[in-house]
Amino acid sequence: MTDEFDVIVIGAGSTGENAAARAVRGGLSAAIIESELVGGECSYWACMPSKALLRPVAVAAEARHVRGVTGTELQPDKVLARRDDFAAGWKDDGQVEWLHGADIELFRGVGRLTGPRMVAVGDRLLRARQAVVVATGSDAVVPAELAAARPWTSREATSARQVPPRLMIVGGGVVACEMAAAWSALGSRVTLLARGRLLAKLPEFAGDLVAAGLRDAGVDVQLGATVAAVRAADGSVRATCTVTDGAMEADEILAATGRSPRTTDIGLETVGLTPGQWLTVDETLRVAGVEGGWLYAAGDVNHLALLTHMGKYQARICGDAIAARAKGKKPKVTDWASTRCIPQVVFTVPEVASAGLTPEAAERAGLRTRLVEYELGKVAGASLYDDDYSGRAQMVVDEDRRVIVGMTLAGPGAGEMIHAASIAIAGEVTLDRLWHAVPSYPTISEIWLRLLEEYGL
Amino acid sequence: MTDEFDVIVIGAGSTGENAAARAVRGGLSAAIIESELVGGECSYWACMPSKALLRPVAVAAEARHVRGVTGTELQPDKVLARRDDFAAGWKDDGQVEWLHGADIELFRGVGRLTGPRMVAVGDRLLRARQAVVVATGSDAVVPAELAAARPWTSREATSARQVPPRLMIVGGGVVACEMAAAWSALGSRVTLLARGRLLAKLPEFAGDLVAAGLRDAGVDVQLGATVAAVRAADGSVRATCTVTDGAMEADEILAATGRSPRTTDIGLETVGLTPGQWLTVDETLRVAGVEGGWLYAAGDVNHLALLTHMGKYQARICGDAIAARAKGKKPKVTDWASTRCIPQVVFTVPEVASAGLTPEAAERAGLRTRLVEYELGKVAGASLYDDDYSGRAQMVVDEDRRVIVGMTLAGPGAGEMIHAASIAIAGEVTLDRLWHAVPSYPTISEIWLRLLEEYGL
Repeated sequence: MTDEFDVIVIGAGSTGENAAARAVRGGLSAAIIESELVGGECSYWACMPSKALLRPVAVAAEARHVRGVTGTELQPDKVLARRDDFAAGWKDDGQVEWLHGADIELFRGVGRLTGPRMVAVGDRLLRARQAVVVATGSDAVVPAELAAARPWTSREATSARQVPPRLMIVGGGVVACEMAAAWSALGSRVTLLARGRLLAKLPEFAGDLVAAGLRDAGVDVQLGATVAAVRAADGSVRATCTVTDGAMEADEILAATGRSPRTTDIGLETVGLTPGQWLTVDETLRVAGVEGGWLYAAGDVNHLALLTHMGKYQARICGDAIAARAKGKKPKVTDWASTRCIPQVVFTVPEVASAGLTPEAAERAGLRTRLVEYELGKVAGASLYDDDYSGRAQMVVDEDRRVIVGMTLAGPGAGEMIHAASIAIAGEVTLDRLWHAVPSYPTISEIWLRLLEEYGL
Repeated sequence: MTDEFDVIVIGAGSTGENAAARAVRGGLSAAIIESELVGGECSYWACMPSKALLRPVAVAAEARHVRGVTGTELQPDKVLARRDDFAAGWKDDGQVEWLHGADIELFRGVGRLTGPRMVAVGDRLLRARQAVVVATGSDAVVPAELAAARPWTSREATSARQVPPRLMIVGGGVVACEMAAAWSALGSRVTLLARGRLLAKLPEFAGDLVAAGLRDAGVDVQLGATVAAVRAADGSVRATCTVTDGAMEADEILAATGRSPRTTDIGLETVGLTPGQWLTVDETLRVAGVEGGWLYAAGDVNHLALLTHMGKYQARICGDAIAARAKGKKPKVTDWASTRCIPQVVFTVPEVASAGLTPEAAERAGLRTRLVEYELGKVAGASLYDDDYSGRAQMVVDEDRRVIVGMTLAGPGAGEMIHAASIAIAGEVTLDRLWHAVPSYPTISEIWLRLLEEYGL
């Protein structure tokens, strides 16, 4: 039996849900296929549970840094219970109800392309009149040398129900840093082994501040460390690890060493594409090299920006584009941000937030740039916020257009401050105009005035 | 003896300091006159001490609203000591040193105009070759019916060394709300008597949320209450107050009922102006109706925006304008924000932040506007931030230009989020552009996406 829909979305994470919903809003019918929980990685094994763990850690750290506030303690069991609630107990009833309300038909099972516009799920065959959207996301990569220890990935690190006495984290990126902050605050003795520096894609000061914050919290941060071999051990000791400078034991190991696309088993070969690869898309999220232009890919799977909010942004554009083309119209809105203004917040202590291009990326893009940096702790609002405020801001200016193309903020409270930079970047607001956006005194946002003064305004 | 300077600034608060510093940066010589402490109201009796009191209150409230965090307590004596430090012990040595480093000559005493370009201070007569800047600020107004009780004004409320057992606050504006939040958290039994609603200049929901927050904190908030008479009493009871519904006793009364310009005794009559009035200025901060255009007024005294950051903004423009005109040039930058984009943060629990025009002001300006509102608590980042998050956002859109002209945010963390709105307003970034400024998930800033979706994007 074949069911027909205008749009078929493979993967009901936040990206898939948004793509389907925008298509429906545009007058199309939509089906969505999910092999696990509706809501996807973000709801159960990433953003929601990780931030549910990290917010108590952050606010407790903030309270401890303000004179006159005392006695703040974390209750690990209650923090874990809070996390369970934010992950909806790993049940997707609420999300299924949302799909229903949004007029999106759900098929449970693994969705696989069987040819142009055709998708099989279980014993059903679905046909897409307009488009198929791949929103299957990404998987954690477990390096071969860690596999023997059956390590945690981001999934177990965000959903574990016990605090491991000793946790070894391999990696230096966002997952590694955030989970080191969370589990050390909850009572684990955490060792973090990073090949290079922390948060290597961001300006160096960001990783330095996070390393200092983790060390303050009792994490053993080892930079330039490589894990040669791991063997599973008996009883309470899960793994013994041979590292650069000797051996080490831990009760759990977290492999936080990268992501791979979930495209190995979705039938890409039936439409002329190669399984296991990231899908290359144009600025309407349409996959390159597919005749008829009916295949789209949004979210992690296209490798533009492995972040929930960017997946959702692409999903909105993709769903709208499909609806426009179904009416024979040209899509009105195309993806601008995925290549120019990706914002990101790392919810460590302190937080790190960035938007737009790093200095290196700006240079690669051929821009004539100037960097402006300023110590956040010198801003009155920052010293009022935290008696020991330590942080730094970096602004990347495109000198030819006198606009900001990148910003990095590292310090307590940075997470909610970065959207101002995203607006300045996306709005291409000139520095001379930014002069009239007066930051309130005494907020940390006064960093904007200091950066502009430092620039020479 | 007459000393000559290019610029003479009367009043060494943050506004005066900045005006002088910008003039010096422009190649001019500058003198500054101060009758009290260099650094002014903001440093000793307003922003700095009030926020030093309020930050511990805010972070303690935040900690108490996150499950898994326990035991947080305020230590009133340490909060007061923190405040003392942020007010530099009410000594201005640091500020005097800053003036010295900035090449600004300080004269202590009351500065009074004695005629065009002439200012007397003590037995010195100073002559300004280019300009005189009035930056004398404003005073608290004490209503006649409260005068008998010698009430606190904002000065005593921010600098008091003891927590009064019972504090009665008369007023419903920023000072009243902030000081109610501070002193109730420090142990006072606070009664707040407001003639109308709280924060009456902002959208109604803001005052409602602050009233609810104050009541949660134990403040007796009485709206629509007028104080008929106050008499001073003996001993520990400072005042008895006859209010709408009877009488009330308190140990201290805070009069937070408005401000008047500090222009009664600065010799305005010698240059054809009327003492005791606010000074009307043009967009270079030049006072209207003064022949030769040598008199400027920046900060509170011009009544455009009684806020430290706006005074500093005007000061930069004013100092630059004076320096430009001294070279026979037209000022490059003029005051845009004071009439279009005044940002403000009220550091209550929850915080309230606003920028730009209220719906009423936008209507008065003849704009065709549309209001978009959204519950902040429905944003995932808000619920992660605070388990009981309650807040609201309002966006005022100029429909003809499709740009935001006003924004109000009320809720925990709002203070650092408003600068994004200031940039959108000052940058006149269209809604279609704002669509590409993607808020990070899961931050409270995702409210931007919700507001745009609600608008119809």
